[in-house]
Amino acid sequence: MIKTDILIIGAGPTGLFTVFEAGLLKLKCHLIDALPQPGGQCSEIYPKKPIYDIPAFPEVLAGDLVDNLMKQIEPFQPGFTLGERAQTIEKLEDETFVVTTNKGTKHHAPVVAIAGGLGSFEPRKPPITGIADYEDKGVEYIIRDPELYRDKDVVIAGGGDSALDWSIFLTDVAKSVTLIHRRSEFRGALDSVEKVQELKDAGKITLITPADVVDVYGEDKVEGVSVKVGADVSNLTCDHFIPLFGLAPKLGPIADWGLEIEKNAIVVNNSLDYQTNIPGIYAIGDVNTYPGKLKLILCGFHEATLMCQSAYQRIFPDKRYVMKYTTVGGVEGFDGTKKEAPKAVVKAIE
Amino acid sequence: MIKTDILIIGAGPTGLFTVFEAGLLKLKCHLIDALPQPGGQCSEIYPKKPIYDIPAFPEVLAGDLVDNLMKQIEPFQPGFTLGERAQTIEKLEDETFVVTTNKGTKHHAPVVAIAGGLGSFEPRKPPITGIADYEDKGVEYIIRDPELYRDKDVVIAGGGDSALDWSIFLTDVAKSVTLIHRRSEFRGALDSVEKVQELKDAGKITLITPADVVDVYGEDKVEGVSVKVGADVSNLTCDHFIPLFGLAPKLGPIADWGLEIEKNAIVVNNSLDYQTNIPGIYAIGDVNTYPGKLKLILCGFHEATLMCQSAYQRIFPDKRYVMKYTTVGGVEGFDGTKKEAPKAVVKAIE
Ligand SMILES: Cc1cc2nc3c(=O)[nH]c(=O)nc-3n(C[C@H](O)[C@H](O)[C@H](O)COP(=O)(O)OP(=O)(O)OC[C@H]3O[C@@H](n4cnc5c(N)ncnc54)[C@H](O)[C@@H]3O)c2cc1C
Ligand SMILES: Cc1cc2nc3c(=O)[nH]c(=O)nc-3n(C[C@H](O)[C@H](O)[C@H](O)COP(=O)(O)OP(=O)(O)OC[C@H]3O[C@@H](n4cnc5c(N)ncnc54)[C@H](O)[C@@H]3O)c2cc1C
Repeated sequence: MIKTDILIIGAGPTGLFTVFEAGLLKLKCHLIDALPQPGGQCSEIYPKKPIYDIPAFPEVLAGDLVDNLMKQIEPFQPGFTLGERAQTIEKLEDETFVVTTNKGTKHHAPVVAIAGGLGSFEPRKPPITGIADYEDKGVEYIIRDPELYRDKDVVIAGGGDSALDWSIFLTDVAKSVTLIHRRSEFRGALDSVEKVQELKDAGKITLITPADVVDVYGEDKVEGVSVKVGADVSNLTCDHFIPLFGLAPKLGPIADWGLEIEKNAIVVNNSLDYQTNIPGIYAIGDVNTYPGKLKLILCGFHEATLMCQSAYQRIFPDKRYVMKYTTVGGVEGFDGTKKEAPKAVVKAIE
Repeated sequence: MIKTDILIIGAGPTGLFTVFEAGLLKLKCHLIDALPQPGGQCSEIYPKKPIYDIPAFPEVLAGDLVDNLMKQIEPFQPGFTLGERAQTIEKLEDETFVVTTNKGTKHHAPVVAIAGGLGSFEPRKPPITGIADYEDKGVEYIIRDPELYRDKDVVIAGGGDSALDWSIFLTDVAKSVTLIHRRSEFRGALDSVEKVQELKDAGKITLITPADVVDVYGEDKVEGVSVKVGADVSNLTCDHFIPLFGLAPKLGPIADWGLEIEKNAIVVNNSLDYQTNIPGIYAIGDVNTYPGKLKLILCGFHEATLMCQSAYQRIFPDKRYVMKYTTVGGVEGFDGTKKEAPKAVVKAIE
């Protein structure tokens, strides 16, 4: 059982910044995310695109924003359960919570902060009968560890940025890379499209378009796929089939936790602390709703900050926290580091 | 009469970021500040100190934060009335406002956003009888334009960072610099104290400590000051006397505008749009109060953002604003510039 002070569901920008604000209050955090990497929408959907409305960043790439947040929270040593979906929640008699993932990992905390964004990102799967039987046996919808594909024959399906970028990346790792798309046009960053063209011309990527993968076969694991080009279906042997048709967020299991839901979002008390109708469970960032709500990153930061103050009161009902500016009090990490402003001196001039 | 969409009182971080959020909504802003420069507390009190809790900045100097904000809002061409205090407000029959400064400058806008922080920064003045008669005639409490002191004899009083830093700076400009402090110990950044020691040793700064300036004299303008060292008082001729005893914020005239005030701050409706009890007047950042309020920069950013949406509705009651992410819609400046993310291409690979 993983134990922490604030259990954060969702490692998007809101969840990540919560670790920092909690850390200033000496509260420890652990994050659960269905994705294999932190950053939420910023990492999954648009890591290489610029954002212009993060305060004091005239321009910042979404991926860099996430890197900066990871660096900022480093001193507070957050724990991560990645690649797992928070599935069930149980309130114990002492008013603390146990959250269990779809893989059975259990987490225990007095406070739960749902920073689940638009929901847990789940892959769009191709309509191939029986494909579920091959999941994690050669069929992967998300690439977690590229090393899995070392010296393997890999078939990727899809026509967007993920399919393009992973095809490019895996040419250096896999034995062979075949990219299959149902159109001959791809939609993505210009340099990705051009790079795939180059690798194809160099014989490093085999391109099959317009075509569809219509079947997967193999004894205990993937041994090949059936590809339909026009009216012809032929078999293509491979070790891995990776359909990259995008991820769609689903509020998912959280919708059944007894929380008040409105327009696919969790209703919170925005006039105080972003708490839900269940005391001890907060909802911050894109996942919540209240009058005037804006689904913006900078709003999640504010909500996380106010929420942590309330969480502190819940965890230490008898203590009074006196806020100190970071400039004045510095930042003391759980890892023993301390950052602080150079102190003024009082010194005679003679 | 200066006309604008949102008149912002206070050019601290909150006021500055308001320009950006308003700009995204195509609303123009004008800012009034009592200080000669933008940035509020960050510029006036701790420009060279690091802040650690600005989201996605593991560390940023307060002065750099302000520079970044100025750069971010540049495309929206804000107007500035600096060095003047907003003094009175009048609501016209058409529900718009006229705000007049202590120097008589008039501003007209349908929406007023008070981002006044802890109040308008006013200098602490030394208790010298009749000093008011010399203000702007050789007595200055804030240095607005260092060129005023070129080839002049300058006397600075004070023992903190401002007194140290301006003494250093003016040695390159003024004919002579005399620094007077009632103790021989100074309180400031180590390198400032050391630099003053150096300049004193080199004969470029005359130091008189422990000592007090007890009088100012001159016909129409400052011709000298009386300095008391121990029991002796002697005259020292000079063109300028600059007492730098710090600035203290005072809510000031705003307190008399009929706004609901609590603990020296303006009560707002935090459950919606940070509007005050007077429709059309909003209060954001350090200057407001509500249950759970934290006087933090990141909170001011969120408040400004929600406030602008409400201001838009007030100005265009019949229009419906559909929010677009900056990443998707780009940022179109009033200066004709346009920033936007590189578009995805749709391109065949052959
Ligand atoms: C193309 C695009 C451009 C954008 N541009 C801007 C912009 O310019 N400015 C701006 O402010 N915003 C922009 N946004 C929106 C911004 O990305 C979101 O506001 C932000 O990501 C919300 O952060 P969050 O942490 O609340 O949620 P998210 O980033 O959505 O992260 C939530 C995380 O929670 C996880 N999760 C949810 N439920 C579970 C569960 N049950 N178990 C495990 N994990 C779960 C998800 O997998 C996800 O990783 C843009 C969004 C997109 C898609
Ligand atoms: C030493 C120190 C360290 C700090 N460290 C941190 C930190 O680490 N993190 C953090 O988040 N915050 C910190 N703060 C607080 C932070 O600086 C404030 O929250 C922030 O400056 C508030 O911004 P603001 O724009 O709301 O107001 P301010 O910065 O106070 O600006 C308000 C402006 O309004 C002007 N004004 C007011 N009334 C009038 C009027 N009637 N007419 C004309 N002008 C007027 C004032 O002159 C001022 O320039 C610190 C503050 C100090 C002093």
